[in-house]
Amino acid sequence: MTRYFNFCSGPATLPLAVLERARDELVDYRGKGLSVMEMSHRGKDFVEIAERAERNFRELMDIPDNYRVLFMQGGATAQFSCVPLNLLGSGGTGYYLDSGNWASKAYEEGARLGDVRIAASTKQDGYRRVPANSEIELGDDAAYLHFTGNETIGGIAYHELPQVDDSVPLVCDLSSSILGHSVDVSRFGIIYAGAQKNIGPAGLTLVIIREDLLDRAMPNVPVMCDYSVTAKHKSMLNTPPTYAWYLCGLVFEWLKEQGGVAAIEKINQRKAAKLYAAIDASDFYSNTMDVGSRSIMNIPFRLHDDSLDKKFLAESEQAGLLTLNGHRSVGGMRASIYNAMPEEGVDTLIAFMQEFARKNG
Amino acid sequence: MTRYFNFCSGPATLPLAVLERARDELVDYRGKGLSVMEMSHRGKDFVEIAERAERNFRELMDIPDNYRVLFMQGGATAQFSCVPLNLLGSGGTGYYLDSGNWASKAYEEGARLGDVRIAASTKQDGYRRVPANSEIELGDDAAYLHFTGNETIGGIAYHELPQVDDSVPLVCDLSSSILGHSVDVSRFGIIYAGAQKNIGPAGLTLVIIREDLLDRAMPNVPVMCDYSVTAKHKSMLNTPPTYAWYLCGLVFEWLKEQGGVAAIEKINQRKAAKLYAAIDASDFYSNTMDVGSRSIMNIPFRLHDDSLDKKFLAESEQAGLLTLNGHRSVGGMRASIYNAMPEEGVDTLIAFMQEFARKNG
Repeated sequence: MTRYFNFCSGPATLPLAVLERARDELVDYRGKGLSVMEMSHRGKDFVEIAERAERNFRELMDIPDNYRVLFMQGGATAQFSCVPLNLLGSGGTGYYLDSGNWASKAYEEGARLGDVRIAASTKQDGYRRVPANSEIELGDDAAYLHFTGNETIGGIAYHELPQVDDSVPLVCDLSSSILGHSVDVSRFGIIYAGAQKNIGPAGLTLVIIREDLLDRAMPNVPVMCDYSVTAKHKSMLNTPPTYAWYLCGLVFEWLKEQGGVAAIEKINQRKAAKLYAAIDASDFYSNTMDVGSRSIMNIPFRLHDDSLDKKFLAESEQAGLLTLNGHRSVGGMRASIYNAMPEEGVDTLIAFMQEFARKNG
Repeated sequence: MTRYFNFCSGPATLPLAVLERARDELVDYRGKGLSVMEMSHRGKDFVEIAERAERNFRELMDIPDNYRVLFMQGGATAQFSCVPLNLLGSGGTGYYLDSGNWASKAYEEGARLGDVRIAASTKQDGYRRVPANSEIELGDDAAYLHFTGNETIGGIAYHELPQVDDSVPLVCDLSSSILGHSVDVSRFGIIYAGAQKNIGPAGLTLVIIREDLLDRAMPNVPVMCDYSVTAKHKSMLNTPPTYAWYLCGLVFEWLKEQGGVAAIEKINQRKAAKLYAAIDASDFYSNTMDVGSRSIMNIPFRLHDDSLDKKFLAESEQAGLLTLNGHRSVGGMRASIYNAMPEEGVDTLIAFMQEFARKNG
C-alpha cells in the first residue's frame, strides 16, 4: 500500500486510521451483513450511526442546547443561497465582510437572491488581511453579518470574531477551519461548513443554527434549502448522504481520540508556525499575507522565481508531496494542513522546500 | 464476512463486486498513494474517474448527443424544486401525473414554487395503477408534463410512456427504476434519478436534460439548483460528492459486465415475475395493484392476517432477508429487487415466504 502526504485544499487528506476502519467495515458493517451505504436511513443501525455522529460533533464543538445541527448537501456554495433565503424573510438586509474569493462569492449569491450589502472589504489591499472591526459599517436594518472564517484560497483567517451588536447574528462560513481551532459557538447565529476539508468526504455540509433563527425564511424557499424543514425532519426529509455522514462520524471519533479540538489546535498552530517560519526565513519563498491574518490551515506561498513552479510541483509530487499547486485563480503554491495532515508531513515538506531552494537558489 | 439479502427500497443493496473493489482501493487508489475521497475534484485522476463514469452511463442509457448529464445533489426531492425553477421561467404551466406518494410530493413542491396543475390522477383508485393516456388533460400552456416512472412506495410503474404532443417535454422521476429497464431517452425532456437505488450510494442525483431546455430558468434560481450553471461547469461549479460519483462509476462498469441494461432487464423481469407469481398463487399473501401497472423493482405485498406482520419481519431478518417492511406510510411488506439483488435472493425470499405461509397458514 502506498500513502503519500496530500496537501489538497479539499477534498482533503483524511486520517489513515479512519480510512482503514472504513475499509475494514465497507462490505460488512460489524457483522450486520451489509455495508453502511446499503442501510435504510430510517433503520435502527443507521439512525444510531447518525445520532452518534451528531453527539460527538456537538461534544467536540461544545454546541449549546439552543443550537440545531443540520446535515445538508451542496457544500458551502449551497449555503450561499440558503443564508439569505432563510434569514431575510422578515425583512432587513444581509451584510457581508469581503475578505477574498469565497466571501465575495457568498455576497454575489446573496445579491442575486435578496437585499444585501458589503459591510467592509479588504479588496483594495489585495485581500492580504481580514477587515478590522473599525472598518465594519452596519445599518440598523442588519438581518445578519456574514463572514468567511478562513479564506481557503487567500490563506487568511479571523483570529478574533467581528465585533457587532449582539442583536445581529454572526453567520460564518467555517468550511476550511472548523474543528481545527476552538470557537465559542454561542457567539454565532449560524456556522456552516462543507465537510471535505476538516470533517470528512465531499457531499455533506454541516450547519449549526441558533433555534430562534429558524422562523425567518422567505416564502417559497426550495424545500431542500429550508433550514426549518431540515431541522423538523432531523435532516432526513428525504434520503441523506448516509455514507458521507458515517465517514464524518468516524472522523469525529478519531478527533476525540486525539484529545479533541483544543489538543489538535495546538498541533495545528505548531505545524503552521513551522511552515511560516521556514518560508519567512528563506529568500526563495514568500507569503505576503498580513502576519496577523495568516491562516493556520491553508498556507499559500510563492517561489521568487516563478519559472521554477513547474519543476517544484513535479519534484514535490515525485517526493510524495501531493497537490501543492495554488488555486487556479492565483497560481503559486499552497499547502493545506488540516487536522488530518500529520506533523511529519509538514516536516517532510519543509525539508523538501529547503533542499529544493538549496539546489535551485 | 457476513452478507445478507437486503430488500431495502433505498439506500439499496449494491453489487458485492463493487463493494469489494471499493474496499480494496479505499485507502490507496491504484497505487496513487491516496483514497479517491481525498483527491482534488479538479485533478487529473479524479477528472478521469468522473468522465469515465459519465461515458459509461451515456453508453448504458444510449443517451443522444443533444442531452447533457448533470451530477447534482439533494436527491429527487431537490429535483421537485429544480424542475419548476428551471422550466417555468419562460411562462407556461407545469403539468403533473399523480400516481402516488412521490408524484404528489413532486406536484406539491411545484405548487409552492410555480404555476402547476394535475393532468390526471389515480388517487380515487387508491393509486392502484398509473393514469391512462385517455385521462390526461393538458392545457395549451403546458411547459412540461411530469410523471414518476416508478412509484417506489406504491409499487406501480409506467410500462408505456404518457402520450402527449411532441412539443411538451416529458419530465420523469426515474429514481427507482433507472438502468433497470430500457428507455428511449430521446422521448424525454428530462430524466432525473436519486442514485441510492439502482445507481450507487445516496448523495448523488443524475439529471439527463435535453440541451434546449437549459434556457428557461426563473430568475433567482439558487445557484446549486440551476441546470444551466451546472451544465456550464460540468457539474463542478463547486466540489461535487466525489466518492459517490466514483462509486456510481464502479456500478456502471459492473452493469456493463452484466451485459448492460437490456440483459439486466431480462433478469429483472424474471425476478419480478417469480415473486408476483408466488404472491398470486398464495392465499396467504396479496398484491392488489393493477397487473398492468405493477413495478418490476418494488413489490409491495400484504399478509392476509396482518397480526403476523411482526413475526414475518423478525423471522425473515433472522433468515438473512433484510428490510422487508413496507413504507411507514402504508405498512405491510415490500421487496425492492433492483439490479444488484441477485436472482438467488428472490428465490430465497420466495422459499422463505412459502415456508412461513405453510407454518402459519
